Amino acid sequence: MSHNDLNLPPVKYLPRLEQVWDWMDSEGISLVMLEDASGRRDQSVRWLTGQPGDALLFLSFNRRALLVPWDINLARQFVNEPAIEIAPYTEYGRLPKKAVAAAAKRLGIANGSKIEIPSITPYPSFLDFVGELADFDIICREKGASAEFKRFRTYKDDEEIAIYRKAAEITNGLIDLIEADVKSGKIKTEADAALLIETESRRHGCEGPGFGTLAAGVHRSFAIHAFPQYTFAPFAGPGLSILDFGVRLAGYTTDVTLTFARSLNPQQERLVALVERAYEKCLALAQPGVPASDVGIAIEKLFAKEKKKMPHGLGHGVGLDEHEYPVFRAEKDNEWTLEPGMVFTLEPGLYDPAEGGCRLENDILLTPAGQEVLTKSRIIRL
Amino acid sequence: MSHNDLNLPPVKYLPRLEQVWDWMDSEGISLVMLEDASGRRDQSVRWLTGQPGDALLFLSFNRRALLVPWDINLARQFVNEPAIEIAPYTEYGRLPKKAVAAAAKRLGIANGSKIEIPSITPYPSFLDFVGELADFDIICREKGASAEFKRFRTYKDDEEIAIYRKAAEITNGLIDLIEADVKSGKIKTEADAALLIETESRRHGCEGPGFGTLAAGVHRSFAIHAFPQYTFAPFAGPGLSILDFGVRLAGYTTDVTLTFARSLNPQQERLVALVERAYEKCLALAQPGVPASDVGIAIEKLFAKEKKKMPHGLGHGVGLDEHEYPVFRAEKDNEWTLEPGMVFTLEPGLYDPAEGGCRLENDILLTPAGQEVLTKSRIIRL
Repeated sequence: MSHNDLNLPPVKYLPRLEQVWDWMDSEGISLVMLEDASGRRDQSVRWLTGQPGDALLFLSFNRRALLVPWDINLARQFVNEPAIEIAPYTEYGRLPKKAVAAAAKRLGIANGSKIEIPSITPYPSFLDFVGELADFDIICREKGASAEFKRFRTYKDDEEIAIYRKAAEITNGLIDLIEADVKSGKIKTEADAALLIETESRRHGCEGPGFGTLAAGVHRSFAIHAFPQYTFAPFAGPGLSILDFGVRLAGYTTDVTLTFARSLNPQQERLVALVERAYEKCLALAQPGVPASDVGIAIEKLFAKEKKKMPHGLGHGVGLDEHEYPVFRAEKDNEWTLEPGMVFTLEPGLYDPAEGGCRLENDILLTPAGQEVLTKSRIIRL
Repeated sequence: MSHNDLNLPPVKYLPRLEQVWDWMDSEGISLVMLEDASGRRDQSVRWLTGQPGDALLFLSFNRRALLVPWDINLARQFVNEPAIEIAPYTEYGRLPKKAVAAAAKRLGIANGSKIEIPSITPYPSFLDFVGELADFDIICREKGASAEFKRFRTYKDDEEIAIYRKAAEITNGLIDLIEADVKSGKIKTEADAALLIETESRRHGCEGPGFGTLAAGVHRSFAIHAFPQYTFAPFAGPGLSILDFGVRLAGYTTDVTLTFARSLNPQQERLVALVERAYEKCLALAQPGVPASDVGIAIEKLFAKEKKKMPHGLGHGVGLDEHEYPVFRAEKDNEWTLEPGMVFTLEPGLYDPAEGGCRLENDILLTPAGQEVLTKSRIIRL
C-alpha cells in the first residue's frame, strides 16, 4: 500500500520554510545549517524538505533552501518542493565544515554574517568550524535554531494531525489483533508479538515499526527497556508482560505500551492498580492550558504516597522523532504548557526486580476542543 | 539459545579497564566520564563493563570504575565484574553535569584535577560543564579519551575474535538459507528476506540483526541505503537487488551485502563485473602492514578509469558499533595501517538511478598469519 492509497493529504513544506525564514529574519541570522547524520540525527531536515535520510540543509536570509544529501538519487525521489535546491554532498567535500563554506558562497552570504550551526555540534568541532570559517560569525546555541525548529514541530499542522489519526487507527487495529492472538495462543513468544508488528505495520502502508519493538515476558518485564528488545522467550505467561511499540506512518511514529496480566499475586495486583490509577489521573489532568510539570508532579506525589518511584519520565511529545516536546518533567524549570496541536504520550510505569513491570502508555492529541486519546492501549487481563 | 549454549568464552573486562587506567596515568587525567545515551551512543561503556544500555561510566586515576545506569535492575543483571561499582542514576540527578560532580566526590578527585568529558559533548553543554565544575579542569578533546578507547576497540582480543568467528558462522548459514529460499521462491518480497533474518538471527542465539536490514528490490536498489529499509515490494526479480544485513552476537555485529542478479542487461552486467573486479582487488590488497588509504585509493582509481565514482566509503571496522575503525578513506590524512586483530568490511558498490545498484560486502579478520575472510557474501546469479 502506498502513501496515496491511505488518502493522506500532501505535506506542504513551503509554510514550514517560511516559518523558519521569518524566525531567521527576527534573529538576524544569515545562514542556518542543519545536519541529519548517523549519531547526529535531526528530523527537522525531513520536516522541512521530505528528505528522510542523511543530509545537510542550508537555509539562508534571502529565503533559499539548499539540501545537500548523501544519496542524491534518493533525495530526488523524496523531495518535491520546487523551492528546495539540491546539490550532491560529493561536491561539498563530504565534510560539514567544507560544505558550509561552499553553501555560503552559493547562497550569497556576505563576510561577517552570522552562520548558525547545530546546537549538538561537539566542542572540538565547533573550534574547527570557527577556524575554517574565519570570515563569518559562527554561532552555536542551546536555545537557537535547532531548539526553535524542534519547538515549531511540537505544534502539529493539519496534515500531521491527519497522519496521526491514521497511524493511530493502524495502531489500534494492531492492539486488537495482538490481544486476540495472545488469547487464542497464536502469539506464544516475545518474537511472535514483535514480528507481527514488523509485518502488519508494513502491510498497512507504514514505513515499519516506529522504533525497535520491546516485548518482555514475565522474566524480563522488570526492565524499563528490555535487552535484547525481544527473544524467543514465552510471552504473556503468569505474571506481568510488557509490549512497547509504535508504527511509523509517513515519518510519524505512534508509541504505546500494553501490559498483559495473568494470574497475578497480590503484590503484582497492587502494582497494576497503582499504574492504572496514575494513568487515569494524568489523563484527566493533561488538558490544554495546564503546565506539563503539574501533571508530572501530581503523578510523582501519587506514587510517593505508596512509597514508589517511577524510574522514567511520565510522557513526551511524539512526531518524526520518537521523543519530542513537550516533556513532563516534575521540575519547576519545565516551562512547557500543554496546548492545542501537541501530540504526546502519557506512560506511567512501575518496575520490580521480583514481581516484574507494568506500564500503560497512550498517545494524546490536544485540539482547541480539548483532549483526544488517539490510541487504545490498555492493561489486558488474561 | 543462550550465550552459554554457544560456547563463547567469558569476556574479561578487567584487562580492558587496566588498559584505560594506564592510558589515564600517562595523560595525567584524574577522571574520565563516558556517556551512552539516546543520540549520544558510546559502545565503549559496554566494552568496558558489559552494560548494554543507557549509562554513564566514570573511570578514576585511583583505578576505580563507577557505572551509573539508567536502569539499575538491568545493569545488575549484565555487569558481573566485581571491580565495577554501580550506583543508580536517580541518585545522581539524572543530569550528566550533576553526576560528574557527585562521582568526583565519591571517587576522591581533588580540586584542580583534570576531568575529561566525551569528545562529542556539544559546545553549549561544554560551557555548562565548565560553569558547573569550576573546581576542576574540564577537558574535551577530539583526540582524547573517547577516540583513544575507540582505538583500543579496533584491535579485537581473543574473546572478541571467538565471538566474530561464531557470528560469521551464523551469518554464513543465513546467506545459504536466503539463497536457497530465493531460488525456491520461498522469499518473494523484500519483507520475506528481512523477516527471515529477524527470526533466524535470534533462533541462533543472536540479539537480533546487527542493524536495520536493508532489502531493496530492483526498483529501489539504486539507493545506497534504501528507504524505507524494506517493504512488501518484490525481491530478486529481473535486474539488481541488494540485501545488506548483519547479526549481532554478544554485542558484536557482522555486516554483509549480497547482490541478486537476474536477467541483466549489458549495462547491469558491466556494473556487476566492475564491482566484482573492485572487490577482488581490494581483498588482495587489504593485508597486514598496508596503509588503509592505499586500498581506498586503488579502488577509486579502478572505478575512475571506467568513469565511475563510488558514493560511499570502501569499508569500515566493525565491532560493538556497526561503524568502527579502521576507515579506508582515499585521502592522505587517513593514518590507519591494517594490523592483526582488526575486523573490517570491504564493500565496493556502484549505483545507477536507471539500472539499479550492486554492492558486495564481506567481513575480514586480520591475524598474525594474514587475512581471514570471515563471511561468504557474494553476487548471486539467478
